[in-house]
Amino acid sequence: MTTYDLPTREFLEVLTSVLGPAEKSTIALHEPNIGDHEHKMVAECLSSGWVSSVGEFITRFENQLSKITGAKHVIAVVNGTCALHLALHSVGINPGDEVIIPSLSFVATANAVAHCGAIPHFADSDLTTLGLDPTALRKHLGSVATRRGDDLINTKTGRRIGAIVPMHTFGHPMQIDELILVAKEFGLPIVEDAAESLGSCVGKKHTGTFGRCGILSFNGNKTITTGGGGAILTDDESLAKKIRHLATTAKLAHDWEFLHDQTAFNYRMPNLNAALGCAQLDRLDEFLRHKRNLANKYDKALQNSGSFEFVGEPKGTTSNYWLNTFRLTNPNLAMRNELLTASRAKGYLCRPAWNLLHQLPMYENSPRAELPVAQILLSSLINVPSSANLGS
Amino acid sequence: MTTYDLPTREFLEVLTSVLGPAEKSTIALHEPNIGDHEHKMVAECLSSGWVSSVGEFITRFENQLSKITGAKHVIAVVNGTCALHLALHSVGINPGDEVIIPSLSFVATANAVAHCGAIPHFADSDLTTLGLDPTALRKHLGSVATRRGDDLINTKTGRRIGAIVPMHTFGHPMQIDELILVAKEFGLPIVEDAAESLGSCVGKKHTGTFGRCGILSFNGNKTITTGGGGAILTDDESLAKKIRHLATTAKLAHDWEFLHDQTAFNYRMPNLNAALGCAQLDRLDEFLRHKRNLANKYDKALQNSGSFEFVGEPKGTTSNYWLNTFRLTNPNLAMRNELLTASRAKGYLCRPAWNLLHQLPMYENSPRAELPVAQILLSSLINVPSSANLGS
Repeated sequence: MTTYDLPTREFLEVLTSVLGPAEKSTIALHEPNIGDHEHKMVAECLSSGWVSSVGEFITRFENQLSKITGAKHVIAVVNGTCALHLALHSVGINPGDEVIIPSLSFVATANAVAHCGAIPHFADSDLTTLGLDPTALRKHLGSVATRRGDDLINTKTGRRIGAIVPMHTFGHPMQIDELILVAKEFGLPIVEDAAESLGSCVGKKHTGTFGRCGILSFNGNKTITTGGGGAILTDDESLAKKIRHLATTAKLAHDWEFLHDQTAFNYRMPNLNAALGCAQLDRLDEFLRHKRNLANKYDKALQNSGSFEFVGEPKGTTSNYWLNTFRLTNPNLAMRNELLTASRAKGYLCRPAWNLLHQLPMYENSPRAELPVAQILLSSLINVPSSANLGS
Repeated sequence: MTTYDLPTREFLEVLTSVLGPAEKSTIALHEPNIGDHEHKMVAECLSSGWVSSVGEFITRFENQLSKITGAKHVIAVVNGTCALHLALHSVGINPGDEVIIPSLSFVATANAVAHCGAIPHFADSDLTTLGLDPTALRKHLGSVATRRGDDLINTKTGRRIGAIVPMHTFGHPMQIDELILVAKEFGLPIVEDAAESLGSCVGKKHTGTFGRCGILSFNGNKTITTGGGGAILTDDESLAKKIRHLATTAKLAHDWEFLHDQTAFNYRMPNLNAALGCAQLDRLDEFLRHKRNLANKYDKALQNSGSFEFVGEPKGTTSNYWLNTFRLTNPNLAMRNELLTASRAKGYLCRPAWNLLHQLPMYENSPRAELPVAQILLSSLINVPSSANLGS
């Protein structure tokens, strides 16, 4: 029998008290909740014969998302990575540009930049929100960037900095209002990576609707799923038109001719996946309620902890609590790894924050700010099981 | 009442004789055939809860495709465009390279090249097979290309030519054996665009399995559909491993760490779509039989025509007859357009061949061979309704 340190024993006790024992079957980090309603709508889609890139569920899914998020225009696509690639391409990111992203994010944020032929430029995170730190970014840009005509230039690399991509980590909104001020100062558009934050708001305004455009993900591990899927949100009608055009091979309307006016993509979400998405969105409020219940339980269980703190939603925001997160009071990578090993051995499929992107081999030479907070977060955060059904 | 020319009157008579009248509801060019079997398997997938990027239907779909095509390795992805992009990237196509493709193809063939940062280099088609003409390509490469070390260089542009992408037009196999000889002479890998030719063989060997790798598409208009989907076929184990790795963010196996060793993609087919695909593949023989019946009917109806010829499968090959094709005996673009207008007005949703890719604005400055045959084909080909159910 392994003898664990005190924090590990406490961690396991909290998980057991909130989730019950997981010794017979493992408890996933986040799994989809699919029921009769989903079966019915997907069957309806199959019966219609319209399963591919055209169909009424796509429009319906986009309209539902528009209503939920308040975004005037929504374009459903195959996944969140492609959504971010297309969003960045559409706001004018070109090969050789740099794009500001947090080092603490899923690798897709950096890959989408690279898919434009651009280079991620890593910025630090905020200790409380876990998202980009606007104050640190202002200071960093002030020291490395200069305006040249319409462009902001990284004086160290000579490259244009083209956009800022904040990410709402684990569903917790970052300080978007502050970031908007920084973006204005430096004349950069914001493209919001809201892949994890469907249902999360700053005040009453939904994440993903603050920037020039924003993106969502509906991967199987997200709050709702379409199997694979993503969406782009924007209030800008001409940008929406451009994105829709580029997502469907830039084909011009014609009864039969195949006229395409630019190099474009095949990124539209199939109607089959949208049908699942429509059913899932009908249940979004239920999922969010259950996830909040679960978050409250974790929060309560950690009230008197000496080793951990529950990462709650930042002030003035509503989080979807996509992934519930514990923070080690004393950041310690070895301890974090012991917690992961111990909890997974007991069947609780906990996971750490992502390895920092600037430390991955393909991005280790990318430009970056000082990243002390990201390093602290890496050594202190642990995600615990967060499926909606665990809070029902 | 419009008075039509003789060929148009004949065209409409043939369509009516083979398909029956279409005056109440239109007859689509190609629509999916989805029945109880598809409903059952998709429902099974939903009930399992595994709808996303991992699941048993993905493996099953890949295994079924492997059995049908004879390819040792199959990687299912989100669509045919992404399949071709990933295939080209994986065989080493880099930004600034050129890739030989037919000018007569769907725009996705050229876009996938462009997504690598590469430049399509257009070659001419064969009058009989409708695919790349190996003899014309040999002559063209002989006049513009020269070896420099390991590379084949376009002497006019100074760029490396990195691969040849033949495409099996409308399901008819092109002269792949001849092309292999040309590819060997010039030291180029072949990446087969078999998007349209699931079920089509040269001798007994399936299209898409002759090159270094090949790709399939399962878009809604194809012989079988997964909603949206594609696959990469290869016999090369290390290439297959590389492709699978690159399709899933190049993540290294680890219980919890997020280690990714290169810039990669999120291209895997969701399990939900694979479930539909498994059911459709179970019915592939039925679809192919019905499509061949329909082709035989069209062929027979055109036996004594003075204006048209039916485009049959090339000698020594088996076509899936994805899209049945009529050829105007006297190529004439105005006449082709009259045929399209007249047939569509009657509810038969015929379509022409694709506008030639070298004439689209984004590719008009791309390098190219002389393209006289592509131009003739553009003026003479018409696709007629081809859904499997029309031949049942």
